[in-house]
Amino acid sequence: MKKILAINSGSSSLKFKLFEMPAEKVLAAGLIERIGFKDGGVTLKYGAGQVYTETRKVSDHRVAVDLLMDLLIEFKIIEDYGEITGIGHRIVAGGEYFKESTIIDDEAEAKIEQLIPLAPLHNPAHLVGIRAFKKKLPQALEVGVFDTAFHQTMPEENFIYSLPYEWYQKYNARRYGAHGTSHRYVAQEAAKLMGKPLADLKLITCHLGAGASLTAIKDGKSFDTSMGFTPLSGVTMATRSGDVDPSLLSYLIEKDPEIADMSEMIDRLNHDASLLGISGVSSDMRDVLAAAPSNHRAQLAVDIFVKNIVKYIGQYIAEMQGVDGIVFTAGIGENSQPVRSLVMKRLAYLGIKEDVVANATFGKNTFVSTPDSKVKVMRIMTDEELVIARDVQALAR
Amino acid sequence: MKKILAINSGSSSLKFKLFEMPAEKVLAAGLIERIGFKDGGVTLKYGAGQVYTETRKVSDHRVAVDLLMDLLIEFKIIEDYGEITGIGHRIVAGGEYFKESTIIDDEAEAKIEQLIPLAPLHNPAHLVGIRAFKKKLPQALEVGVFDTAFHQTMPEENFIYSLPYEWYQKYNARRYGAHGTSHRYVAQEAAKLMGKPLADLKLITCHLGAGASLTAIKDGKSFDTSMGFTPLSGVTMATRSGDVDPSLLSYLIEKDPEIADMSEMIDRLNHDASLLGISGVSSDMRDVLAAAPSNHRAQLAVDIFVKNIVKYIGQYIAEMQGVDGIVFTAGIGENSQPVRSLVMKRLAYLGIKEDVVANATFGKNTFVSTPDSKVKVMRIMTDEELVIARDVQALAR
Repeated sequence: MKKILAINSGSSSLKFKLFEMPAEKVLAAGLIERIGFKDGGVTLKYGAGQVYTETRKVSDHRVAVDLLMDLLIEFKIIEDYGEITGIGHRIVAGGEYFKESTIIDDEAEAKIEQLIPLAPLHNPAHLVGIRAFKKKLPQALEVGVFDTAFHQTMPEENFIYSLPYEWYQKYNARRYGAHGTSHRYVAQEAAKLMGKPLADLKLITCHLGAGASLTAIKDGKSFDTSMGFTPLSGVTMATRSGDVDPSLLSYLIEKDPEIADMSEMIDRLNHDASLLGISGVSSDMRDVLAAAPSNHRAQLAVDIFVKNIVKYIGQYIAEMQGVDGIVFTAGIGENSQPVRSLVMKRLAYLGIKEDVVANATFGKNTFVSTPDSKVKVMRIMTDEELVIARDVQALAR
Repeated sequence: MKKILAINSGSSSLKFKLFEMPAEKVLAAGLIERIGFKDGGVTLKYGAGQVYTETRKVSDHRVAVDLLMDLLIEFKIIEDYGEITGIGHRIVAGGEYFKESTIIDDEAEAKIEQLIPLAPLHNPAHLVGIRAFKKKLPQALEVGVFDTAFHQTMPEENFIYSLPYEWYQKYNARRYGAHGTSHRYVAQEAAKLMGKPLADLKLITCHLGAGASLTAIKDGKSFDTSMGFTPLSGVTMATRSGDVDPSLLSYLIEKDPEIADMSEMIDRLNHDASLLGISGVSSDMRDVLAAAPSNHRAQLAVDIFVKNIVKYIGQYIAEMQGVDGIVFTAGIGENSQPVRSLVMKRLAYLGIKEDVVANATFGKNTFVSTPDSKVKVMRIMTDEELVIARDVQALAR
């Protein structure tokens, strides 16, 4: 039996999930947060629902990895470090170099470093995590699992912007997309649910969390996706703006005395837009939905959120010349019965019929459209950590 | 018989077309260009294909109007100024104030001036033209015909961006659209061709010129349109970028030593992108199509141009929950048989079939899809000046 750690290393946090493979059993999961701050903390879930939390200063990622390993021993989740044979790291930017999950040797590590300009906040944090684990668990196989890798199959017409082509050649300016690990996983699960080979299906996967993206999947591969050069663009999200007329940004920088330049504008577009910005109520869809009946801006935020999903679905149907199935996943996609219902109502012209009972249930992969619905609509629970563990296992063979 | 002038006044040019109304007969048309430069010039077309051209310095718009009126007398197109009873001015930005064509009294003139921030290059030029004609032809009715007016019927969910709502409240940041006069006209002509009331049709009008925009028309009204706060955004055009991830712009400003700030970036996005930027060959679709068979970037430019039209058509079908007719108009839309053909081929899944013979003819409003095509596709010749003359006539009653 192998034990494999799935790691998501942020600039001041370390998320982890420990799997027993190939059984795919979750042995432990948790988060070390506010690394480098005075009031750091750890949360560890293990066994049959036990939770251990502690507040303590965690000075850097090296210390965080030490702490994690000590806790795994202390709570008898592992007996010694050697049991952990592989570590999979979620990595935001893989550029055009990483087209699939890859063993992190010196060359791959150097490449992840070279790709920092494409994810200036994320890739450096991933490298800190990778290096801390290399030091602590030198025997374990380290693997990079890239958010962008799944989208590397997009045809050029779908990843080149209508910009001077030299910007692509010189500066790698193109659409990369994101959430690739999730889109890939839920597409596979959807094909299982539909009882057909993924390669024979045209699917549209809607990953709707705090970040939200839609992907058109044809021949089992990513054909187009709504996020762009970065995860800022595309549909309406919790706080990120999605697509905007570039001239409007230039105009607002001149008009708004609180915004000095484009980098401050990007900051506002990342944190103050979409559900939060339109509604003025909250970035959380549950709060916005609750406020909507008596609050015009909250209702408008819901309408725009739904409209943008519908708009991208329509776009991808045209690009793929049809669709067999539509998948909802991630926080809002899995849990918001109203959002799924509103989208399906607007897609009635496709012969989509909501299965009201199935759509009101929670917690399992299921059709939420009726059996006679011309296009199948599904709720699929995403599990990016499981994909990471599987990819590590596959490369360990 | 009334004579009505349709005027398009730019910062250094004055385009004109003189109609006899209600016969809608074109008496003269032409252009005074490079106003304010040493090498100004005038072109006047009249009668049965006669053309008069002259190179001369035209110091300002007042002088241009004097020159135009002198030429109309000299060539016996009019006998005296009093024959011109109305002047319609094309105006780029009407904001939320002008929802239809409007007589330019003092209040309207002040409002056009207030709207300068929404079209900093265009509205000031329009005002110069308006004032020059008021001085020269005080007896004539002056009417503003706004590019944005037709789109004022869009529902809020289609014109509000996923941005902080305060930017709409404080700074009028919203989608206004453009080419409204053209979209309105070709939709009416398409309904005539289809033999149905416009109000009963769901149409998608594709105005494909140097600037390009698509509009979804439902219940006879603009429901959504691809241009945004300005005419920079939306689909691929001759040189304007259309939609781009805002973060990519910020990244490129840092990377490209030739671009100092966002205002320089906007300049590049307006002049160096899309067909020209992708192909590196030309901003003219004819040149790009000619180069495509042996030039990868030219072929890519064509593919992306077509893809974006298809993508927006798909989006609008989803938003309107269906479509009855698709209209091609303006330079590329009216004249490019290959572009129309490529778009129709990609829409075959809708039951659209190209009528190859009709699609290869030129110069009249016609179906370019077969009679059994499930969605009708049409080529309609746009005529914004005629709409301007009609609107003036309607308001003169």
